[in-house]
Amino acid sequence: MSLSSVHVHERRKGQPVRTPKVTEVVVTPVAVVDPPLLNASGVHQPYQLRAIVELRTDAGLVGLGETYGDDPVLANLRAAAPALVGLDVFDLNGLALRVARALGSVTVDTPTDLIGVASREKSVAQTAGAFEVACYDVQGKATGLRVCDLLGGAVRESVPFSAYLFYRWATHPEGAAPEGFPDDDWGQALDAEGIVAQARRLVDAYGFRSLKLKGGVFAPEEEVEAVVALREAFPDHPLRLDPNANWSVRTAQRIAPRLEGLLEYLEDPTAGNPGMAAVARATSLPLATNMCVTSFEEVPEAAALGSVAVVLTDHHYWGGFRATQRLSGICQTFGWGMSMHSNTHLGISLAAMTHLAAATPALDYACDTHSPWQREDLVRPGALRWSGGSLTVPSGPGLGVELDRDALARLHRQYLDCGIRHRDDQVGMVLADPTWVRKSPRY
Amino acid sequence: MSLSSVHVHERRKGQPVRTPKVTEVVVTPVAVVDPPLLNASGVHQPYQLRAIVELRTDAGLVGLGETYGDDPVLANLRAAAPALVGLDVFDLNGLALRVARALGSVTVDTPTDLIGVASREKSVAQTAGAFEVACYDVQGKATGLRVCDLLGGAVRESVPFSAYLFYRWATHPEGAAPEGFPDDDWGQALDAEGIVAQARRLVDAYGFRSLKLKGGVFAPEEEVEAVVALREAFPDHPLRLDPNANWSVRTAQRIAPRLEGLLEYLEDPTAGNPGMAAVARATSLPLATNMCVTSFEEVPEAAALGSVAVVLTDHHYWGGFRATQRLSGICQTFGWGMSMHSNTHLGISLAAMTHLAAATPALDYACDTHSPWQREDLVRPGALRWSGGSLTVPSGPGLGVELDRDALARLHRQYLDCGIRHRDDQVGMVLADPTWVRKSPRY
Repeated sequence: MSLSSVHVHERRKGQPVRTPKVTEVVVTPVAVVDPPLLNASGVHQPYQLRAIVELRTDAGLVGLGETYGDDPVLANLRAAAPALVGLDVFDLNGLALRVARALGSVTVDTPTDLIGVASREKSVAQTAGAFEVACYDVQGKATGLRVCDLLGGAVRESVPFSAYLFYRWATHPEGAAPEGFPDDDWGQALDAEGIVAQARRLVDAYGFRSLKLKGGVFAPEEEVEAVVALREAFPDHPLRLDPNANWSVRTAQRIAPRLEGLLEYLEDPTAGNPGMAAVARATSLPLATNMCVTSFEEVPEAAALGSVAVVLTDHHYWGGFRATQRLSGICQTFGWGMSMHSNTHLGISLAAMTHLAAATPALDYACDTHSPWQREDLVRPGALRWSGGSLTVPSGPGLGVELDRDALARLHRQYLDCGIRHRDDQVGMVLADPTWVRKSPRY
Repeated sequence: MSLSSVHVHERRKGQPVRTPKVTEVVVTPVAVVDPPLLNASGVHQPYQLRAIVELRTDAGLVGLGETYGDDPVLANLRAAAPALVGLDVFDLNGLALRVARALGSVTVDTPTDLIGVASREKSVAQTAGAFEVACYDVQGKATGLRVCDLLGGAVRESVPFSAYLFYRWATHPEGAAPEGFPDDDWGQALDAEGIVAQARRLVDAYGFRSLKLKGGVFAPEEEVEAVVALREAFPDHPLRLDPNANWSVRTAQRIAPRLEGLLEYLEDPTAGNPGMAAVARATSLPLATNMCVTSFEEVPEAAALGSVAVVLTDHHYWGGFRATQRLSGICQTFGWGMSMHSNTHLGISLAAMTHLAAATPALDYACDTHSPWQREDLVRPGALRWSGGSLTVPSGPGLGVELDRDALARLHRQYLDCGIRHRDDQVGMVLADPTWVRKSPRY
């Protein structure tokens, strides 16, 4: 039996097939507790914000999406939402057009400077991408297909992720966390020994087969020491270091050669394509980025300068699944490797990342995810299963995850209560040390 | 009611949705009568070869594809065909992999040097593309959706094409056409006057709103004269000239400035990206190509040299619909315009081109098609309707065209009888003038 031979018949009679149309768009901001993870910008706040998108349709099917939950992002999602009513969930070109038109006066902003500069293109892409994921979720529910099947088919049924190691404090600084905020039991990690212990626990719990250290926090020499310690403790795990452009070109040119033979790639040692190109000329290490190639606008300069060897994509700000597939074509065309970036996210985004990675042949590195650091979620358990450091592609239709409405309500209440409306990693640093100032690059 | 709510239910129970799987691949070569159209390589033979692909599936649905019908192309299609049995028609990544593996010892060849150099990548892409179109046709028939809907939605329901003007003879040379071959009634067109008359008839019959002259046939000055005559006769029609790289760099640098203000773009004045870049520096005319950027391998050089402003895509050799969407992303990223190339083709390809163009926002020029020169077809009439120089996107599921099996049998018989197995545009020229020799560039 065909998928829906009845519809073939309908269409032949000239009667259009009834595809799901959007009737209502619901955007719900949520806040999730987050540990004090250190990075080049400062330290994670006690709550991270996310926006949950629900596309309700006349077919009774609801599509899910997830993106950043900062005020400017919410403003864009809400500005575009009314324009989506009536949209056919298969009409992704129409979606892009409706969003671009609705965001004529787009709020240009970025939730964190760790994902590069803000631009109008990125704000539109970010907004459209959240809705596009939800459209695919409905498409899958309507046809019975998984999102990865709709994206061209799974080239892998299990998607490898890397353990995302962070320098971190045991607790948020006094005054940063609302009363009653529960600390996790990971303790602090402020040196090579702490990082190796953290890696051991993550590898034991999840089976990760590659390790990424978020750098740009301490002096480069200390971070090299941590990488050397990881190499000794995990001789067979590919390693990565991400200083988040917190090194000057000269520092990066001096440090990168010391990491040769230790890393599979060095991520964003310095800022901008010209700087990255200068570093690339000083080392045999492949340079990766999710900071200097973060939109299609930035691709020609990178191609011209030879600044990067690996692009870390992220469907959240590249503009969704199809945009990421276009980026994948560009990476293949220019001989760039492809990996996947992560900001703090919940289960809807994790499912989306997994489907996308499953259907992207050119994705040749384990993906990043902050998942192990999250203790709260709003998808029902069971759909996202870890094994050997990999996630099995969810088997249900669409994204294959279901919203836990009680959890959504609780995390939305937490959003209302926490008072945070914009990610600012400097807050906690300044609380801990009032003399602290963000410098870029610091080293 | 949803598209197939029953399948949502099935999938939820952990039972996979039953999607159509390929059970049999049928490749049928056909020959269609063709007029003596002149080009840089010589003259069209009295028959052009095409291959018709049918993917039969366990759902009872049959998907159609069409591509070149020359021996090396057929060899590749037939080498890949057995590997497709069992393929899920939604698994396009799997299709690409199966074809690439099956063509380990691919026959590298090109049906005509008018579409650039042959390469392994292009041969694999060409083979996969023919099957991919057929997969999409089945996907559409299975879901009730049109191919353009499966490609992200129609941004236009009517696709503009350009009138494809050719210098031509009235009849094939004696000895070139098998006995009883019927000449058409277009007569000869060997100068500006003939070209304007041809344009008038095409515009009257189809309503074309832009005109393309196939050049590289006569001395550049004569072809400029024809362009000037077209501009006078059709003051509001955008014009193009395609010398098919039959001009030297110096000739092109000399002639191009004389075409400024007359053409919307000048197509392939000379060969290769370095030569095109040298011409681009000598003129304000946008240079277009379907000869120096014909595969992803050729993109980086073009980007580095700034050799082209417009890429004419062709799903037949770029590798199908998804590959063309990747190219579209590259064109947008590098600020290149996008148009669509055509070789002689029948209704299946015309439907495929129309769906693809409908779903490609970046396609900002009228597409090329040889259609008006074909007097035979093998799709049932009615699905492809011309209006105002545009084709309405077929409304049926999938490609929206149906195979006329009697016509297929007749054109296959014609293939068997005609004896032509490889396109060779020199044959007719040499018959007409035994001293004729292909030179490249000639001018």
